[in-house]
Amino acid sequence: MASSRRLVALWVLFTLVLPPHLLSVGGAKSCFWPSSAHDDGSCLSWRVMVEANNARGWRTVPAPCVGYVRSYMTRGQYGRDLDSVMEQVSAYADQIAAADDGLDAWIFDIDDTCLSNLIYYEAKRFGAYDPLAFKNWASQGACPGIPAVLQLFMALQDKGFKLFLLSGRDEETLSSCTSENLESEGFSGYERLLMRTPDYRGQSSSLFKSAMRKQLLDEGYRIRGNVGDQWSDLQGENVGDRVFKIPNPMYFVP
Amino acid sequence: MASSRRLVALWVLFTLVLPPHLLSVGGAKSCFWPSSAHDDGSCLSWRVMVEANNARGWRTVPAPCVGYVRSYMTRGQYGRDLDSVMEQVSAYADQIAAADDGLDAWIFDIDDTCLSNLIYYEAKRFGAYDPLAFKNWASQGACPGIPAVLQLFMALQDKGFKLFLLSGRDEETLSSCTSENLESEGFSGYERLLMRTPDYRGQSSSLFKSAMRKQLLDEGYRIRGNVGDQWSDLQGENVGDRVFKIPNPMYFVP
Repeated sequence: MASSRRLVALWVLFTLVLPPHLLSVGGAKSCFWPSSAHDDGSCLSWRVMVEANNARGWRTVPAPCVGYVRSYMTRGQYGRDLDSVMEQVSAYADQIAAADDGLDAWIFDIDDTCLSNLIYYEAKRFGAYDPLAFKNWASQGACPGIPAVLQLFMALQDKGFKLFLLSGRDEETLSSCTSENLESEGFSGYERLLMRTPDYRGQSSSLFKSAMRKQLLDEGYRIRGNVGDQWSDLQGENVGDRVFKIPNPMYFVP
Repeated sequence: MASSRRLVALWVLFTLVLPPHLLSVGGAKSCFWPSSAHDDGSCLSWRVMVEANNARGWRTVPAPCVGYVRSYMTRGQYGRDLDSVMEQVSAYADQIAAADDGLDAWIFDIDDTCLSNLIYYEAKRFGAYDPLAFKNWASQGACPGIPAVLQLFMALQDKGFKLFLLSGRDEETLSSCTSENLESEGFSGYERLLMRTPDYRGQSSSLFKSAMRKQLLDEGYRIRGNVGDQWSDLQGENVGDRVFKIPNPMYFVP
Protein backbone atom coordinates (compact mmCIF):
# COMPACT_ATOMS: atom_id res chain seq x y z
CA MET A 1 0.00 0.00 0.00
CA ALA A 2 2.82 2.36 0.99
CA SER A 3 4.66 1.28 -2.13
CA SER A 4 1.61 2.06 -4.29
CA ARG A 5 1.37 5.49 -2.74
CA ARG A 6 5.03 6.07 -3.46
CA LEU A 7 4.48 5.06 -7.05
CA VAL A 8 1.56 7.43 -7.40
CA ALA A 9 3.52 10.23 -5.73
CA LEU A 10 6.42 9.62 -8.08
CA TRP A 11 4.10 9.64 -11.06
CA VAL A 12 2.58 12.95 -9.97
CA LEU A 13 6.08 14.35 -9.43
CA PHE A 14 7.09 13.24 -12.91
CA THR A 15 4.12 14.94 -14.50
CA LEU A 16 4.75 18.13 -12.56
CA VAL A 17 8.49 18.40 -12.99
CA LEU A 18 9.28 17.07 -16.44
CA PRO A 19 8.60 19.32 -19.42
CA PRO A 20 5.57 18.09 -21.31
CA HIS A 21 7.45 17.09 -24.45
CA LEU A 22 9.54 14.69 -22.40
CA LEU A 23 6.42 13.20 -20.91
CA SER A 24 4.96 12.25 -24.23
CA VAL A 25 5.93 9.13 -26.09
CA GLY A 26 8.06 10.05 -29.05
CA GLY A 27 8.74 13.63 -27.94
CA ALA A 28 6.73 16.26 -29.80
CA LYS A 29 5.72 13.82 -32.47
CA SER A 30 2.50 12.27 -31.47
CA CYS A 31 0.83 13.80 -28.51
CA PHE A 32 -1.11 16.65 -30.08
CA TRP A 33 -3.35 14.30 -31.99
CA PRO A 34 -3.34 11.19 -29.89
CA SER A 35 -4.92 8.82 -32.35
CA SER A 36 -2.39 9.51 -35.07
CA ALA A 37 0.44 8.26 -32.94
CA HIS A 38 2.81 7.88 -35.84
CA ASP A 39 2.29 11.33 -37.26
CA ASP A 40 5.39 13.46 -37.25
CA GLY A 41 3.70 16.76 -38.04
CA SER A 42 3.25 16.00 -41.72
CA CYS A 43 -0.54 15.68 -41.37
CA LEU A 44 -0.56 19.08 -39.72
CA SER A 45 1.50 20.37 -42.68
CA TRP A 46 -1.04 18.86 -45.03
CA ARG A 47 -3.98 20.38 -43.17
CA VAL A 48 -2.41 23.83 -43.18
CA MET A 49 -1.77 23.47 -46.93
CA VAL A 50 -5.45 22.69 -47.44
CA GLU A 51 -6.48 25.79 -45.47
CA ALA A 52 -3.95 27.98 -47.32
CA ASN A 53 -5.15 26.60 -50.68
CA ASN A 54 -1.73 25.16 -51.44
CA ALA A 55 -3.09 21.62 -51.67
CA ARG A 56 -5.69 21.39 -54.41
CA GLY A 57 -7.61 18.75 -56.28
CA TRP A 58 -7.15 16.03 -53.66
CA ARG A 59 -9.76 13.29 -53.79
CA THR A 60 -9.37 11.78 -50.34
CA VAL A 61 -7.65 12.57 -47.08
CA PRO A 62 -4.16 10.99 -47.40
CA ALA A 63 -4.34 7.51 -45.86
CA PRO A 64 -1.79 8.22 -43.09
CA CYS A 65 -3.84 11.26 -42.02
CA VAL A 66 -7.29 9.68 -41.66
CA GLY A 67 -6.83 9.21 -37.90
CA TYR A 68 -5.37 12.67 -37.61
CA VAL A 69 -8.33 14.28 -39.38
CA ARG A 70 -10.80 12.40 -37.20
CA SER A 71 -8.99 13.57 -34.06
CA TYR A 72 -8.75 17.10 -35.38
CA MET A 73 -12.47 17.23 -36.10
CA THR A 74 -13.65 15.61 -32.90
CA ARG A 75 -11.19 16.41 -30.12
CA GLY A 76 -11.32 20.17 -29.89
CA GLN A 77 -8.94 21.80 -32.36
CA TYR A 78 -11.55 22.11 -35.13
CA GLY A 79 -13.88 23.81 -32.66
CA ARG A 80 -11.12 26.18 -31.56
CA ASP A 81 -10.22 26.98 -35.17
CA LEU A 82 -13.86 27.60 -36.00
CA ASP A 83 -14.35 29.89 -32.99
CA SER A 84 -11.23 31.83 -33.96
CA VAL A 85 -12.51 32.39 -37.49
CA MET A 86 -15.90 33.47 -36.15
CA GLU A 87 -14.13 36.04 -33.97
CA GLN A 88 -12.44 37.45 -37.07
CA VAL A 89 -15.76 37.63 -38.90
CA SER A 90 -17.42 39.38 -35.97
CA ALA A 91 -14.57 41.88 -35.64
CA TYR A 92 -14.91 42.70 -39.35
CA ALA A 93 -18.71 42.86 -39.21
CA ASP A 94 -18.50 45.26 -36.27
CA GLN A 95 -16.59 47.70 -38.49
CA ILE A 96 -19.21 47.82 -41.22
CA ALA A 97 -22.83 48.83 -41.14
CA ALA A 98 -25.77 47.71 -43.22
CA ALA A 99 -27.36 50.59 -45.12
CA ASP A 100 -31.07 51.30 -44.88
CA ASP A 101 -31.71 50.23 -48.46
CA GLY A 102 -31.56 46.54 -47.47
CA LEU A 103 -28.95 45.73 -50.10
CA ASP A 104 -25.97 44.84 -47.91
CA ALA A 105 -25.59 41.12 -48.34
CA TRP A 106 -23.60 38.26 -46.85
CA ILE A 107 -23.17 34.89 -48.46
CA PHE A 108 -22.99 31.62 -46.57
CA ASP A 109 -22.19 28.25 -48.03
CA ILE A 110 -24.23 25.38 -46.53
CA ASP A 111 -22.30 22.09 -46.31
CA ASP A 112 -19.76 22.20 -43.48
CA THR A 113 -20.36 25.90 -43.16
CA CYS A 114 -23.89 26.04 -41.72
CA LEU A 115 -24.61 22.30 -41.55
CA SER A 116 -22.12 19.65 -40.57
CA ASN A 117 -21.49 16.49 -42.56
CA LEU A 118 -18.92 15.19 -40.13
CA ILE A 119 -21.07 12.17 -39.17
CA TYR A 120 -21.32 11.16 -42.81
CA TYR A 121 -17.66 11.65 -43.70
CA GLU A 122 -16.41 10.01 -40.53
CA ALA A 123 -18.51 6.94 -41.30
CA LYS A 124 -16.98 6.89 -44.80
CA ARG A 125 -13.52 7.25 -43.25
CA PHE A 126 -13.09 10.49 -45.21
CA GLY A 127 -13.00 8.51 -48.44
CA ALA A 128 -13.59 9.63 -52.02
CA TYR A 129 -16.73 11.60 -52.91
CA ASP A 130 -19.69 9.30 -53.54
CA PRO A 131 -22.47 11.36 -55.14
CA LEU A 132 -25.27 8.86 -54.54
CA ALA A 133 -24.36 8.14 -50.94
CA PHE A 134 -24.01 11.83 -50.21
CA LYS A 135 -27.36 12.62 -51.81
CA ASN A 136 -28.92 9.90 -49.70
CA TRP A 137 -27.37 11.39 -46.56
CA ALA A 138 -28.36 14.95 -47.45
CA SER A 139 -31.93 13.96 -48.31
CA GLN A 140 -32.44 12.75 -44.74
CA GLY A 141 -32.18 16.38 -43.64
CA ALA A 142 -30.33 15.26 -40.53
CA CYS A 143 -27.14 17.35 -40.74
CA PRO A 144 -26.45 18.99 -37.39
CA GLY A 145 -26.14 22.77 -37.46
CA ILE A 146 -22.78 24.27 -36.58
CA PRO A 147 -23.51 26.38 -33.47
CA ALA A 148 -20.67 28.92 -33.87
CA VAL A 149 -21.81 29.69 -37.41
CA LEU A 150 -25.46 29.86 -36.38
CA GLN A 151 -24.55 32.48 -33.79
CA LEU A 152 -22.84 34.60 -36.45
CA PHE A 153 -25.73 34.00 -38.83
CA MET A 154 -28.22 35.42 -36.34
CA ALA A 155 -25.95 38.30 -35.32
CA LEU A 156 -25.52 39.45 -38.93
CA GLN A 157 -29.29 39.44 -39.43
CA ASP A 158 -29.72 41.46 -36.25
CA LYS A 159 -27.30 43.99 -37.73
CA GLY A 160 -29.54 44.35 -40.78
CA PHE A 161 -27.59 42.35 -43.36
CA LYS A 162 -29.42 40.22 -45.90
CA LEU A 163 -28.22 36.63 -45.84
CA PHE A 164 -28.01 34.41 -48.90
CA LEU A 165 -27.37 30.70 -48.65
CA LEU A 166 -25.44 29.57 -51.71
CA SER A 167 -25.01 25.84 -52.17
CA GLY A 168 -23.82 23.48 -54.88
CA ARG A 169 -26.49 21.00 -53.78
CA ASP A 170 -28.91 20.01 -56.54
CA GLU A 171 -32.01 22.19 -56.32
CA GLU A 172 -34.41 19.79 -58.01
CA THR A 173 -33.80 16.88 -55.66
CA LEU A 174 -32.52 18.47 -52.44
CA SER A 175 -34.29 21.78 -52.14
CA SER A 176 -37.02 20.93 -49.66
CA CYS A 177 -34.94 18.64 -47.41
CA THR A 178 -32.21 21.27 -47.32
CA SER A 179 -34.50 24.12 -46.33
CA GLU A 180 -36.18 21.90 -43.73
CA ASN A 181 -32.79 20.85 -42.35
CA LEU A 182 -31.71 24.49 -42.13
CA GLU A 183 -34.95 25.44 -40.41
CA SER A 184 -34.77 22.60 -37.89
CA GLU A 185 -31.21 23.63 -36.99
CA GLY A 186 -32.20 27.25 -36.46
CA PHE A 187 -31.00 28.77 -39.73
CA SER A 188 -34.01 30.90 -40.52
CA GLY A 189 -34.82 34.45 -41.53
CA TYR A 190 -32.40 34.43 -44.44
CA GLU A 191 -33.23 36.22 -47.67
CA ARG A 192 -32.89 33.42 -50.20
CA LEU A 193 -31.63 29.89 -50.67
CA LEU A 194 -29.68 29.60 -53.92
CA MET A 195 -29.05 26.04 -55.07
CA ARG A 196 -27.64 24.47 -58.22
CA THR A 197 -30.24 24.48 -60.99
CA PRO A 198 -30.11 21.96 -63.85
CA ASP A 199 -28.32 24.58 -66.00
CA TYR A 200 -25.27 24.37 -63.79
CA ARG A 201 -25.10 20.61 -63.32
CA GLY A 202 -21.59 19.34 -64.00
CA GLN A 203 -20.06 22.80 -63.76
CA SER A 204 -17.47 23.60 -61.14
CA SER A 205 -18.70 25.01 -57.86
CA SER A 206 -16.53 28.11 -58.38
CA LEU A 207 -18.13 28.83 -61.76
CA PHE A 208 -21.67 28.20 -60.55
CA LYS A 209 -21.22 30.32 -57.44
CA SER A 210 -19.62 33.16 -59.40
CA ALA A 211 -22.67 33.22 -61.67
CA MET A 212 -25.04 33.32 -58.70
CA ARG A 213 -23.11 36.17 -57.09
CA LYS A 214 -23.17 38.07 -60.36
CA GLN A 215 -26.96 37.71 -60.31
CA LEU A 216 -27.08 39.25 -56.83
CA LEU A 217 -24.92 42.17 -57.94
CA ASP A 218 -27.20 42.68 -60.93
CA GLU A 219 -30.09 42.92 -58.48
CA GLY A 220 -28.25 45.71 -56.70
CA TYR A 221 -26.88 43.82 -53.72
CA ARG A 222 -23.45 44.61 -52.29
CA ILE A 223 -21.68 41.48 -51.07
CA ARG A 224 -20.07 42.61 -47.84
CA GLY A 225 -18.88 39.21 -46.69
CA ASN A 226 -18.66 35.61 -47.85
CA VAL A 227 -18.23 32.59 -45.59
CA GLY A 228 -17.41 29.10 -46.83
CA ASP A 229 -15.40 25.99 -46.06
CA GLN A 230 -14.05 25.58 -49.62
CA TRP A 231 -11.81 27.92 -51.55
CA SER A 232 -14.20 27.42 -54.47
CA ASP A 233 -16.78 29.30 -52.37
CA LEU A 234 -14.38 32.20 -51.98
CA GLN A 235 -12.62 32.53 -55.31
CA GLY A 236 -13.81 33.35 -58.83
CA GLU A 237 -15.77 36.47 -59.71
CA ASN A 238 -17.37 38.95 -57.32
CA VAL A 239 -16.39 37.09 -54.19
CA GLY A 240 -17.34 39.97 -51.93
CA ASP A 241 -15.54 42.62 -49.89
CA ARG A 242 -14.01 40.03 -47.62
CA VAL A 243 -13.98 36.25 -47.57
CA PHE A 244 -13.63 33.89 -44.60
CA LYS A 245 -12.37 30.34 -44.89
CA ILE A 246 -13.96 27.91 -42.46
CA PRO A 247 -11.68 24.95 -41.72
CA ASN A 248 -12.39 21.70 -43.53
CA PRO A 249 -9.77 18.98 -43.97
CA MET A 250 -12.41 16.36 -44.87
CA TYR A 251 -12.86 16.90 -48.61
CA PHE A 252 -12.06 19.20 -51.51
CA VAL A 253 -14.59 20.71 -53.91
CA PRO A 254 -13.15 22.22 -57.10
CA MET B 1 17.24 -1.29 -5.75
CA ALA B 2 14.46 -3.71 -6.57
CA SER B 3 12.00 -0.96 -5.78
CA SER B 4 13.76 1.45 -8.17
CA ARG B 5 13.65 -1.12 -10.90
CA ARG B 6 9.94 -1.57 -10.28
CA LEU B 7 9.46 2.16 -10.54
CA VAL B 8 11.35 2.29 -13.82
CA ALA B 9 9.44 -0.71 -15.14
CA LEU B 10 6.16 0.92 -14.17
CA TRP B 11 7.21 4.15 -15.84
CA VAL B 12 8.10 2.32 -19.05
CA LEU B 13 4.80 0.46 -18.87
CA PHE B 14 2.95 3.74 -18.43
CA THR B 15 4.61 5.28 -21.47
CA LEU B 16 3.88 2.21 -23.57
CA VAL B 17 0.33 1.56 -22.52
CA LEU B 18 -1.23 4.94 -21.90
CA PRO B 19 -2.29 6.99 -24.90
CA PRO B 20 0.09 9.89 -25.40
CA HIS B 21 -2.45 12.59 -24.58
CA LEU B 22 -2.86 11.11 -21.12
CA LEU B 23 0.88 11.14 -20.64
CA SER B 24 1.22 14.84 -21.23
CA VAL B 25 0.50 17.41 -18.58
CA GLY B 26 -2.77 19.09 -19.36
CA GLY B 27 -3.87 16.54 -21.93
CA ALA B 28 -3.39 17.61 -25.53
CA LYS B 29 -2.84 21.18 -24.52
CA SER B 30 0.80 21.85 -24.32
CA CYS B 31 3.05 19.16 -25.61
CA PHE B 32 3.22 19.91 -29.30
CA TRP B 33 5.12 23.14 -28.76
CA PRO B 34 6.97 22.56 -25.56
CA SER B 35 8.03 26.12 -24.93
CA SER B 36 4.49 27.48 -25.08
CA ALA B 37 3.41 25.29 -22.25
CA HIS B 38 0.26 27.25 -21.57
CA ASP B 39 -1.00 27.23 -25.12
CA ASP B 40 -4.26 25.40 -25.51
CA GLY B 41 -4.21 25.22 -29.30
CA SER B 42 -5.28 28.82 -29.76
CA CYS B 43 -1.88 29.85 -31.14
CA LEU B 44 -2.19 27.04 -33.65
CA SER B 45 -5.65 28.38 -34.53
CA TRP B 46 -4.15 31.80 -34.99
CA ARG B 47 -1.33 30.53 -37.19
CA VAL B 48 -3.74 28.61 -39.41
CA MET B 49 -5.86 31.75 -39.72
CA VAL B 50 -2.80 33.67 -40.87
CA GLU B 51 -2.02 31.04 -43.50
CA ALA B 52 -5.64 30.92 -44.67
CA ASN B 53 -5.77 34.73 -44.87
CA ASN B 54 -8.50 34.89 -42.25
CA ALA B 55 -6.36 36.99 -39.90
CA ARG B 56 -5.39 40.24 -41.59
CA GLY B 57 -3.80 43.53 -40.67
CA TRP B 58 -2.14 42.28 -37.49
CA ARG B 59 0.86 44.33 -36.39
CA THR B 60 2.58 41.89 -34.06
CA VAL B 61 2.39 38.25 -33.14
CA PRO B 62 -0.16 38.06 -30.28
CA ALA B 63 1.79 38.26 -27.01
CA PRO B 64 0.73 34.80 -25.75
CA CYS B 65 1.95 33.27 -29.04
CA VAL B 66 5.49 34.68 -29.18
CA GLY B 67 6.98 31.53 -27.66
CA TYR B 68 4.80 29.40 -29.87
CA VAL B 69 5.94 31.18 -33.04
CA ARG B 70 9.59 30.86 -32.03
CA SER B 71 9.15 27.13 -31.44
CA TYR B 72 7.24 26.72 -34.66
CA MET B 73 9.96 28.47 -36.66
CA THR B 74 12.92 26.75 -35.04
CA ARG B 75 11.87 23.29 -33.91
CA GLY B 76 10.91 21.58 -37.12
CA GLN B 77 7.28 22.27 -38.03
CA TYR B 78 8.09 25.32 -40.16
CA GLY B 79 10.63 23.25 -42.09
CA ARG B 80 8.09 20.46 -42.58
CA ASP B 81 5.44 22.92 -43.73
CA LEU B 82 7.89 24.52 -46.14
CA ASP B 83 8.95 21.16 -47.59
CA SER B 84 5.30 20.21 -48.05
CA VAL B 85 4.58 23.40 -49.97
CA MET B 86 7.67 22.87 -52.12
CA GLU B 87 6.39 19.39 -52.98
CA GLN B 88 3.12 20.93 -54.16
CA VAL B 89 4.98 23.47 -56.29
CA SER B 90 7.15 20.76 -57.83
CA ALA B 91 4.15 18.56 -58.58
CA TYR B 92 2.47 21.48 -60.34
CA ALA B 93 5.66 22.49 -62.19
CA ASP B 94 6.06 18.91 -63.43
CA GLN B 95 2.69 19.20 -65.17
CA ILE B 96 3.57 22.31 -67.14
CA ALA B 97 6.32 22.97 -69.66
CA ALA B 98 8.16 26.13 -70.56
CA ALA B 99 7.68 27.06 -74.21
CA ASP B 100 10.66 27.73 -76.47
CA ASP B 101 9.88 31.44 -76.70
CA GLY B 102 11.35 32.08 -73.25
CA LEU B 103 8.24 33.83 -72.00
CA ASP B 104 7.07 31.40 -69.34
CA ALA B 105 7.72 33.19 -66.08
CA TRP B 106 7.64 32.46 -62.37
CA ILE B 107 7.61 35.09 -59.68
CA PHE B 108 9.35 34.77 -56.34
CA ASP B 109 9.09 37.15 -53.45
CA ILE B 110 12.38 37.69 -51.57
CA ASP B 111 11.91 38.27 -47.82
CA ASP B 112 11.06 35.01 -46.07
CA THR B 113 10.54 33.39 -49.42
CA CYS B 114 14.09 33.21 -50.80
CA LEU B 115 15.95 34.84 -47.90
CA SER B 116 15.16 34.30 -44.24
CA ASN B 117 14.73 37.13 -41.74
CA LEU B 118 14.11 34.77 -38.85
CA ILE B 119 17.29 35.86 -37.03
CA TYR B 120 16.15 39.48 -37.19
CA TYR B 121 12.54 38.90 -36.13
CA GLU B 122 13.47 36.46 -33.39
CA ALA B 123 15.85 39.06 -31.92
CA LYS B 124 12.99 41.58 -32.03
CA ARG B 125 10.71 39.03 -30.36
CA PHE B 126 8.43 39.23 -33.40
CA GLY B 127 7.49 42.78 -32.46
CA ALA B 128 5.99 45.54 -34.57
CA TYR B 129 7.56 46.48 -37.91
CA ASP B 130 10.46 48.89 -37.45
CA PRO B 131 11.39 50.29 -40.89
CA LEU B 132 14.79 51.69 -39.89
CA ALA B 133 15.91 48.63 -37.98
CA PHE B 134 14.77 46.37 -40.80
CA LYS B 135 16.59 48.46 -43.40
CA ASN B 136 19.70 48.27 -41.27
CA TRP B 137 19.38 44.50 -41.07
CA ALA B 138 18.68 44.09 -44.79
CA SER B 139 21.55 46.35 -45.79
CA GLN B 140 24.00 43.97 -44.12
CA GLY B 141 23.15 41.45 -46.84
CA ALA B 142 23.38 38.68 -44.29
CA CYS B 143 19.99 36.98 -44.65
CA PRO B 144 20.42 33.23 -44.90
CA GLY B 145 18.94 31.63 -48.01
CA ILE B 146 16.09 29.19 -47.53
CA PRO B 147 17.44 25.91 -48.92
CA ALA B 148 14.12 24.30 -49.88
CA VAL B 149 13.18 27.37 -51.92
CA LEU B 150 16.64 27.57 -53.52
CA GLN B 151 16.24 24.00 -54.67
CA LEU B 152 12.94 24.86 -56.36
CA PHE B 153 14.44 28.05 -57.75
CA MET B 154 17.21 26.11 -59.49
CA ALA B 155 14.87 23.34 -60.67
CA LEU B 156 12.51 25.81 -62.35
CA GLN B 157 15.41 27.42 -64.18
CA ASP B 158 16.58 24.00 -65.33
CA LYS B 159 13.11 23.47 -66.75
CA GLY B 160 13.45 26.63 -68.83
CA PHE B 161 11.28 29.04 -66.84
CA LYS B 162 12.30 32.68 -66.48
CA LEU B 163 12.46 33.72 -62.87
CA PHE B 164 11.57 37.18 -61.60
CA LEU B 165 12.32 38.31 -58.09
CA LEU B 166 9.68 40.77 -56.96
CA SER B 167 10.29 42.58 -53.70
CA GLY B 168 8.80 45.49 -51.80
CA ARG B 169 12.31 46.42 -50.63
CA ASP B 170 13.36 49.95 -51.58
CA GLU B 171 15.35 49.84 -54.80
CA GLU B 172 17.34 53.03 -54.29
CA THR B 173 18.82 52.04 -50.95
CA LEU B 174 18.73 48.23 -50.91
CA SER B 175 19.29 47.16 -54.50
CA SER B 176 22.98 46.24 -54.40
CA CYS B 177 23.01 44.62 -50.96
CA THR B 178 19.93 42.59 -51.93
CA SER B 179 21.39 41.29 -55.17
CA GLU B 180 24.68 40.51 -53.40
CA ASN B 181 22.82 38.71 -50.62
CA LEU B 182 20.88 36.67 -53.17
CA GLU B 183 24.06 35.82 -55.07
CA SER B 184 25.97 34.80 -51.96
CA GLU B 185 23.11 32.49 -50.98
CA GLY B 186 23.03 30.83 -54.38
CA PHE B 187 20.05 32.62 -55.92
CA SER B 188 21.54 33.38 -59.32
CA GLY B 189 20.62 33.01 -62.96
CA TYR B 190 17.28 34.76 -62.56
CA GLU B 191 15.92 37.04 -65.25
CA ARG B 192 15.35 40.25 -63.32
CA LEU B 193 15.20 41.72 -59.84
CA LEU B 194 12.19 44.00 -59.48
CA MET B 195 12.24 46.26 -56.44
CA ARG B 196 10.13 49.14 -55.22
CA THR B 197 11.02 52.32 -57.09
CA PRO B 198 10.39 55.79 -55.58
CA ASP B 199 7.09 55.96 -57.52
CA TYR B 200 5.65 53.20 -55.39
CA ARG B 201 6.90 54.29 -51.99
CA GLY B 202 4.08 54.28 -49.46
CA GLN B 203 1.83 52.17 -51.65
CA SER B 204 0.60 48.78 -50.50
CA SER B 205 2.68 45.79 -51.48
CA SER B 206 -0.31 44.28 -53.25
CA LEU B 207 -0.77 47.36 -55.43
CA PHE B 208 2.93 47.71 -56.22
CA LYS B 209 3.31 44.03 -57.07
CA SER B 210 0.18 44.03 -59.23
CA ALA B 211 1.66 46.91 -61.24
CA MET B 212 4.97 45.07 -61.70
CA ARG B 213 3.20 41.91 -62.84
CA LYS B 214 1.15 43.93 -65.29
CA GLN B 215 4.42 45.24 -66.72
CA LEU B 216 5.65 41.68 -67.25
CA LEU B 217 2.43 40.72 -69.01
CA ASP B 218 2.80 43.79 -71.23
CA GLU B 219 6.25 42.53 -72.16
CA GLY B 220 4.64 39.28 -73.26
CA TYR B 221 5.47 37.06 -70.30
CA ARG B 222 3.04 34.44 -69.05
CA ILE B 223 3.10 34.14 -65.26
CA ARG B 224 2.88 30.40 -64.70
CA GLY B 225 3.50 30.45 -60.97
CA ASN B 226 3.91 32.85 -58.08
CA VAL B 227 5.55 32.03 -54.76
CA GLY B 228 5.41 34.28 -51.69
CA ASP B 229 5.06 34.27 -47.92
CA GLN B 230 2.44 37.05 -47.82
CA TRP B 231 -1.05 37.02 -49.26
CA SER B 232 -0.26 40.49 -50.64
CA ASP B 233 2.26 38.72 -52.93
CA LEU B 234 -0.46 36.44 -54.20
CA GLN B 235 -3.55 38.60 -54.49
CA GLY B 236 -4.45 41.62 -56.58
CA GLU B 237 -4.21 41.71 -60.37
CA ASN B 238 -2.55 39.15 -62.65
CA VAL B 239 -1.35 36.94 -59.85
CA GLY B 240 -0.44 34.12 -62.20
CA ASP B 241 -1.82 30.71 -63.14
CA ARG B 242 -1.22 29.37 -59.66
CA VAL B 243 -0.04 30.87 -56.41
CA PHE B 244 1.76 29.20 -53.52
CA LYS B 245 1.70 30.51 -49.96
CA ILE B 246 4.92 29.94 -48.03
CA PRO B 247 4.29 29.81 -44.27
CA ASN B 248 5.07 32.93 -42.27
CA PRO B 249 3.56 33.61 -38.84
CA MET B 250 6.16 36.30 -38.03
CA TYR B 251 4.66 39.40 -39.61
CA PHE B 252 1.93 40.67 -41.91
CA VAL B 253 2.46 42.89 -44.96
CA PRO B 254 -0.69 44.54 -46.36
